[in-house]
Amino acid sequence: MNELEILQLIEEKKYKRLKKVLSDMNEVDIADILNDLDSNTTLLIFRMLPKDLAVDVFAHFSTEQQEDIINAVTDKELNYILDELFFDDMIDMIEEMPSNVVSKILINSTQEERNLINQFLKYPEDSAGSIMTIEYVELKPTMNVKEALAHLKEIGLNKETIYTCYVTDTQRKLEGIVSLRKLVISNDDAKITDLMDTEAVYVYTHDDQESVANVFVKYGFLALPVVDNENRLTGIITVDDIMDVIEQEATEDFQIMAAMVPSETAYMNTKVTSLAKQRIPWLLVLMLSATFTGRIINKFNDVLQAVVILASFIPMLMDTGGNSGSQSSTLIIRGLATGEINVKDAGKIFWKEIRIGIIVGLTLAAVNFARLMLIEKVDPTVALTVSLTLVVTVMIAKMVGGTLPLLAKKLKVDPALMAGPLITTLVDAISLMVYFSVASALLGL
Amino acid sequence: MNELEILQLIEEKKYKRLKKVLSDMNEVDIADILNDLDSNTTLLIFRMLPKDLAVDVFAHFSTEQQEDIINAVTDKELNYILDELFFDDMIDMIEEMPSNVVSKILINSTQEERNLINQFLKYPEDSAGSIMTIEYVELKPTMNVKEALAHLKEIGLNKETIYTCYVTDTQRKLEGIVSLRKLVISNDDAKITDLMDTEAVYVYTHDDQESVANVFVKYGFLALPVVDNENRLTGIITVDDIMDVIEQEATEDFQIMAAMVPSETAYMNTKVTSLAKQRIPWLLVLMLSATFTGRIINKFNDVLQAVVILASFIPMLMDTGGNSGSQSSTLIIRGLATGEINVKDAGKIFWKEIRIGIIVGLTLAAVNFARLMLIEKVDPTVALTVSLTLVVTVMIAKMVGGTLPLLAKKLKVDPALMAGPLITTLVDAISLMVYFSVASALLGL
Repeated sequence: MNELEILQLIEEKKYKRLKKVLSDMNEVDIADILNDLDSNTTLLIFRMLPKDLAVDVFAHFSTEQQEDIINAVTDKELNYILDELFFDDMIDMIEEMPSNVVSKILINSTQEERNLINQFLKYPEDSAGSIMTIEYVELKPTMNVKEALAHLKEIGLNKETIYTCYVTDTQRKLEGIVSLRKLVISNDDAKITDLMDTEAVYVYTHDDQESVANVFVKYGFLALPVVDNENRLTGIITVDDIMDVIEQEATEDFQIMAAMVPSETAYMNTKVTSLAKQRIPWLLVLMLSATFTGRIINKFNDVLQAVVILASFIPMLMDTGGNSGSQSSTLIIRGLATGEINVKDAGKIFWKEIRIGIIVGLTLAAVNFARLMLIEKVDPTVALTVSLTLVVTVMIAKMVGGTLPLLAKKLKVDPALMAGPLITTLVDAISLMVYFSVASALLGL
Repeated sequence: MNELEILQLIEEKKYKRLKKVLSDMNEVDIADILNDLDSNTTLLIFRMLPKDLAVDVFAHFSTEQQEDIINAVTDKELNYILDELFFDDMIDMIEEMPSNVVSKILINSTQEERNLINQFLKYPEDSAGSIMTIEYVELKPTMNVKEALAHLKEIGLNKETIYTCYVTDTQRKLEGIVSLRKLVISNDDAKITDLMDTEAVYVYTHDDQESVANVFVKYGFLALPVVDNENRLTGIITVDDIMDVIEQEATEDFQIMAAMVPSETAYMNTKVTSLAKQRIPWLLVLMLSATFTGRIINKFNDVLQAVVILASFIPMLMDTGGNSGSQSSTLIIRGLATGEINVKDAGKIFWKEIRIGIIVGLTLAAVNFARLMLIEKVDPTVALTVSLTLVVTVMIAKMVGGTLPLLAKKLKVDPALMAGPLITTLVDAISLMVYFSVASALLGL
């Protein structure tokens, strides 16, 4: 049943049929449909859903819709939602809510829950702690499979958090993990301590989410335990949240690398003024930096006046330099993000980029020289000036583009800042300096 | 135990201890260590591993190391590896192997396996079919939970492929899915047909892997069934492979958007000549296109000769135009890739970018005008020329950057091609045309 048919059922107030149809649907799709409706209709349909499904749908609502629902429901209903909501989804929600809504949530929580919420709100943004949840299955090493499965059945957790169980000692220190698969295919009387994998990979609450994502990708895990500084289990991170992290981190890098202040809001939902604000700061910085390049042209105005045609090669030299540098910096920035490249590889990368620069520079210069001589039929000295500048510019651009991201990483600055736009501005100035120096020398100006 | 300690055990030939240590380790880490060793040592250690672990390690070897192993092992050993290897890993491997190795593999396969391999090799690159595997649990709707769990125990599949079971009818048509979680928490005599979710999301073998990845991210699935045109279940895709797809697709976009021919090989493992080959084609195209921009300067040489200072603002205007356009195109390209933006939004996007262009253009022009008048103290008409050009250029750049990726998508060209470098080259020409036209008009040249 598609969205249009659902909307028609709503329009025609065929609520009985609607209720039946919705109860078979995926929570994400229901939330998608309700997100487009006004808040009264949403509330009406929301209350129509089976309770468990309603909470799952709630978790996928937009912040605005969550706020509307919280303001509209009774304390009893809110209590049910808060009890059933995954803890990581609840924390995400609280972070976005205005204070009056947060108050309503906190009033409906126990003291213990309030303490836990406060603890979770303190984890730094983009840390493992900020994306973990507390719903996981904890087993004791002394249990056997039958007891473990009975325990699972009793707590009856939702979704994938059940597929890896965590074995802890009396101090809640992580001793090992055991998969539900292993429980299901083992004999009832097998001991957990004999089944568990004691070499489990884990992360710390303060680890960066990007490095956690790289661990998931490397090993192909479904979930990963998170421990505190004393190696006590404090939560788990599940792969569905990690997929969001991988997409978000890539989107953030795309934005930074295109000279924007990164934003997590979707383009279509962002206001024009917010989008403009996201774009102006770096454009201003780069615009003002580019005036230094202009000064170089000013300084060599006599050269330009003497050989007028030189001016016409400026765009080509600037663009090629910028593009060459961007290619190198993009590969290094991406390699650093996925964990494939390390700062300690700096020497190897520098040497690699020099050699690439020579090959690429010579190829471009050769094509350019041939074109200038055969098609444009310019003076050989001018053709030589342009082509020589091209080789030197490409080489320098590759070296600058290859090493600046590594330097940034070393200085704990986001390497993504050292992308195309900044490299271009830098290489522009360099290429013009080279250009006019070569021209002065070769043309005897 | 870290890599250095392992290498020391190998060096000191303490094989008994080594065997014990390795058998507790994760297959990915073992493969990482063996990838750095010579092929004789690798084979020696590989044969030391428990059989199941050995196959898991094999799946994570580099192509070269897989080739060495296949060439070195006996037919019996190879048979074991091929039997236990996940089918998607086997297909990936066969695609990379030289023909003599493929022959050895095919000789060691049954006729039925050979047919299946041929069928899988035919799926287009980057399609759902090319990343799916055939190891999944198939249940019949008439089974009860006890029978289903007994079936699971009997086939004893590896890893996460067990966590979602697929219910099919006699024609193998997909009727629904049921999670292992549901089986474990349900009563033994509950019928599968009553437990299964009949509204399961599925994809087709020919669907693009990027759109499949977007389905995974949207719903947070662990696995997704793949059906053929007659809706018969042909395989499943698991989330670990999808994480790789998400990373790869983003990396590919980063490369294309920085004017490179995309490559799946890691930077550090790619030869200098291959990296140069990846970079030269687009640099050449863009270099030659940029010469048109040069022609514009040539055409307006008399303007430049008359008001010399105009030349010095060319870099700033070109860079700002390029950066403004890149910002817009990057957001749209990324939105199209994650499925957040649709081609049908073109009108809304165009209107949004016009308004953003006005705000951004006016802000930059105001700052620039103030700087030119107060700091650089240039002639007011020149300041006005530069600032007016800035407004127009930024606006055009935003419109071009915002719509070209959508046009590309509509024409079934990769939108990532319409990124910074191409937009810059295009906007360069436009901005210079605007600049000289404004200058001619205002300065009366």
